[in-house]
Amino acid sequence: MSRLFTVVASFLMLLSSASYAGFEPFKPLPTKPPIPSDNPQTSAKIELGKQLYFDKRLSATYTVSCNGCHNVMSAGDDGKAVSRGALGIEGKRSAPTLYNVAYQTVYFWDGRAESLEEAIKEHLTSPTEMGMKDKKAVVERIWNTADYPQRFADAYGKGVALSYDSITKALAAYVRTLHTPDSDFDRYLRGDKDAISKQARRGHNEFIEVGCASCHFWVNLSGPVPGLAFKMGEGFYELFPNYPDTKDEARYQLADDVGRYDVTKDETDRRMWRVPVLRNVALTAPYFHNGQVKTLEEAIRVMGTTQLGRDLTRAQQEDIAAFLHTVSGRFPEQRFPRLPAD
Amino acid sequence: MSRLFTVVASFLMLLSSASYAGFEPFKPLPTKPPIPSDNPQTSAKIELGKQLYFDKRLSATYTVSCNGCHNVMSAGDDGKAVSRGALGIEGKRSAPTLYNVAYQTVYFWDGRAESLEEAIKEHLTSPTEMGMKDKKAVVERIWNTADYPQRFADAYGKGVALSYDSITKALAAYVRTLHTPDSDFDRYLRGDKDAISKQARRGHNEFIEVGCASCHFWVNLSGPVPGLAFKMGEGFYELFPNYPDTKDEARYQLADDVGRYDVTKDETDRRMWRVPVLRNVALTAPYFHNGQVKTLEEAIRVMGTTQLGRDLTRAQQEDIAAFLHTVSGRFPEQRFPRLPAD
Repeated sequence: MSRLFTVVASFLMLLSSASYAGFEPFKPLPTKPPIPSDNPQTSAKIELGKQLYFDKRLSATYTVSCNGCHNVMSAGDDGKAVSRGALGIEGKRSAPTLYNVAYQTVYFWDGRAESLEEAIKEHLTSPTEMGMKDKKAVVERIWNTADYPQRFADAYGKGVALSYDSITKALAAYVRTLHTPDSDFDRYLRGDKDAISKQARRGHNEFIEVGCASCHFWVNLSGPVPGLAFKMGEGFYELFPNYPDTKDEARYQLADDVGRYDVTKDETDRRMWRVPVLRNVALTAPYFHNGQVKTLEEAIRVMGTTQLGRDLTRAQQEDIAAFLHTVSGRFPEQRFPRLPAD
Repeated sequence: MSRLFTVVASFLMLLSSASYAGFEPFKPLPTKPPIPSDNPQTSAKIELGKQLYFDKRLSATYTVSCNGCHNVMSAGDDGKAVSRGALGIEGKRSAPTLYNVAYQTVYFWDGRAESLEEAIKEHLTSPTEMGMKDKKAVVERIWNTADYPQRFADAYGKGVALSYDSITKALAAYVRTLHTPDSDFDRYLRGDKDAISKQARRGHNEFIEVGCASCHFWVNLSGPVPGLAFKMGEGFYELFPNYPDTKDEARYQLADDVGRYDVTKDETDRRMWRVPVLRNVALTAPYFHNGQVKTLEEAIRVMGTTQLGRDLTRAQQEDIAAFLHTVSGRFPEQRFPRLPAD
């Protein structure tokens, strides 16, 4: 954790003078996200991953696809507080958007997966998600489906088997194409000062001044990305809520979930959470790990009371909401995959 | 029914000499299907219909979209014997592919809807399908969703309200784009005699000679289409099974469902069924109204015993299957719709 605190401290120092000195803690979304060297992007692999992403055969009951909870035709989530998996069991935490997750260094709300590939592996066999019995069952299901073996051979070439590893790598390759550049805020950052409204600019300043940007900074408004201070697998965590005994906590039960402590059983991780991505946040209601807050304005207000220990004025809430609306990006145009018929 | 029998009789007369005289009871799929004059195709309406088609908000529980059971990324169905709707209740009959349904004169297995629009209307409020309480609930749901009212205004122009009618018309307009031209068989019909294999050509002849083509003829291999002898709303029905007391009937319970009698309560309609479309049939297992037969070869064999009263040889089954594989067409390339986020 020492490294984390060093990074955070440096950023906080920068940010404390940010609004005065013109330092910009944000960066436009790059054209392409970082790609791990052991899973290079190829068009054949991405296409295969897209097929798998939409294929309900990857779920125990043939009823759920990845897209069911992470709907890329919408903003990459499902608009639900929590989602129901293939076995009919509800998950514990809200399904986040998959857009721009390629910039994360850890995955899941509690950061328990150190790569996108690892996160996908867990999804396939999780009883609250795809519900497959085990890795072997996943591989057998795909192996026995129409021309999937051939599609894998086409995507990976000779010598790479249809395996749990190659299935999850193809899915990850597709998910890494889900990025949303060219938001109004990105254009603003690139110098087009009229790309966002006066209210949004005011909200942007307030976002920094009241303390939101202490955690929600850089390209994804979620802190360090791979290559910026952090390596893959190193998570940027924050305590949430900071002020657990508020009326809002009583209303929304934000402190009931112990967060990263679930994974590490380390007391210092109690209620520690990966700082969530805010890109497209205006499109991904409801909010927080338990999905209990329904509107963006209310989420901003609740962050004020539970995290910053302050009551944001109605005007501040609206200004910050106006700013956050500007980080909705351009969703990629995509063609339908063709799924194997059997 | 007199008109129906006249039409069938004429075709049977033609067909009886077909294999000898070279008469061709089949036609390539036209470039565009017939479009009803009260629901013209426009790109804005089609795009709106596509959004609605993929939007789970059209189901009572926000869990099912049209695409859930009629998956256009696959062959337009869901590969299940019967499907489960939004309320968790299974339907009575197998969800057919929606590809090429624009050429039908009636809809549902029993032909109870006289247009695609009417069929869609029933789907939205059926307890085994989308499960919406009533038409009003459908309209209110869409009216209250993000920018749908604006999207309707864009698609229909001034003076056309967001209504049950405009919702179903948009969906129908999209579904009419789901056609699959340029199958190998279409190329064969257009004169490319090598477009299908020798076995498929043999199967094609057998398909006519043993009697399949008496019902499964013309552009959709399902009999008359709008403008060919039949008008919209006039159904081409056949008794099925013709031979209800076979071993195969006992095995697959094909006679348990009374078919069109359900709708009309007319004894002459008992076990009468709309002749199903055979385009893409090789991709739409399982088979028959109850989805009880798993493979194409077995479906062909069972049609022999239960409908034609004959045991097709293994070679005949394989030849006819080879022919039916050639009526799989080219699925349209489509771009993902963008669903409203709320």
